[in-house]
Amino acid sequence: MKGISLLGGPLELIPEGFFNELKYNNQFLLGVDRGSLFLVEKGLTPDVAVGDFDSLKKAELAKIEKVVKDIRYSNPVKDLTDSELMIKTAFENYHLTSLKIYGATGGRLDHFLVNLFTFLKPEFQIYAPKVTLIDRQNVIRLFLPGKHHIKPLEGYSYLGIVNLTEVKNLSIRGAKYPLENYTSAYPVSFASNEFVADKSVELYFEKGTIAVIYSKDLNRFANL
Amino acid sequence: MKGISLLGGPLELIPEGFFNELKYNNQFLLGVDRGSLFLVEKGLTPDVAVGDFDSLKKAELAKIEKVVKDIRYSNPVKDLTDSELMIKTAFENYHLTSLKIYGATGGRLDHFLVNLFTFLKPEFQIYAPKVTLIDRQNVIRLFLPGKHHIKPLEGYSYLGIVNLTEVKNLSIRGAKYPLENYTSAYPVSFASNEFVADKSVELYFEKGTIAVIYSKDLNRFANL
Repeated sequence: MKGISLLGGPLELIPEGFFNELKYNNQFLLGVDRGSLFLVEKGLTPDVAVGDFDSLKKAELAKIEKVVKDIRYSNPVKDLTDSELMIKTAFENYHLTSLKIYGATGGRLDHFLVNLFTFLKPEFQIYAPKVTLIDRQNVIRLFLPGKHHIKPLEGYSYLGIVNLTEVKNLSIRGAKYPLENYTSAYPVSFASNEFVADKSVELYFEKGTIAVIYSKDLNRFANL
Repeated sequence: MKGISLLGGPLELIPEGFFNELKYNNQFLLGVDRGSLFLVEKGLTPDVAVGDFDSLKKAELAKIEKVVKDIRYSNPVKDLTDSELMIKTAFENYHLTSLKIYGATGGRLDHFLVNLFTFLKPEFQIYAPKVTLIDRQNVIRLFLPGKHHIKPLEGYSYLGIVNLTEVKNLSIRGAKYPLENYTSAYPVSFASNEFVADKSVELYFEKGTIAVIYSKDLNRFANL
């Protein structure tokens, strides 16, 4: 089964129509911390709620506890972050085949970097190819070494390719700005690349973890 | 001389009062791409404007060209990103002693990661200790190996410590959640740490680059 998770990031970064679409879709639903409250307040019932909930008022937590059957209370002084506990629950307990994560960007940037860097940890690497981080302007997929065909995504003009770790022999073929056999000991963001004539881009690398970031400008910029 | 730079990230992430304060302060002012236009439209004149300006309309670029004396046009097919060219201009041509960078976060995340990861490149490492990235919820400072005393920052409750690269023997002393001799081959975000009784936190590490992220929750969360 496929899953959708909502974390506690700023609501204004959630894609338009997100909550409405959830009403008509049967995917497994996970809320993390304040993300659980966002869902409940929109009339949606998460299958699982995860978090230490320490930023919620008692009455807010009570709203979650009233409707959610599986609540996983994490320990604020802990080895796993809330989002890590959510990922383990999603894949190990509920055996989801893929997971779209919303509310993971914006707001506090130490939180965003937790959400992005979690998949670099050896025990979470296995889930990297199964997750997508999504906000209003960005769709982030994660890739492990090998050859990958990156398809264009409708509505997203830009292709960012970011090695989040050291990388060996990175090649980007068939894109507007190709790259051949790039090796680096530190993270580099190759931003603002583009697809050519709607053709797939070939991504190849031998070591490391790469984030592929589809992104778009927002229309408001056109009106400034 | 100290400097302030505005990049083209979302305006709603700029701290309140930013443009007004610029009117009463004599720091060196740099605009990057649409950030230059934001400044000019607020009646401020950047000392330098940098960018390929390819997302601006002709009339918008003309507004910048009318008032800015030093414009550095970058090449869209280029070795340096716009923000890299800005940093080189700030420190190499104008010999600034420090630089606060706004408009570097949010929006397109490949852009944010460019702005964060630029300082990992060997030719930019020297500037890492001189820059601060700032938005409404976050203040990011960068540190190179050694011992550092991290002072609390008024109004910011949380302390995130993020090794952006491999790190050797990282210790965090005097914080709510201390850490001793942590070594990692990949980036890790230690989020949501806190200062204790307003005392400095000691940061020590032997290899790598570390981002210290001061952050705060926004009040709106209290009213949801």
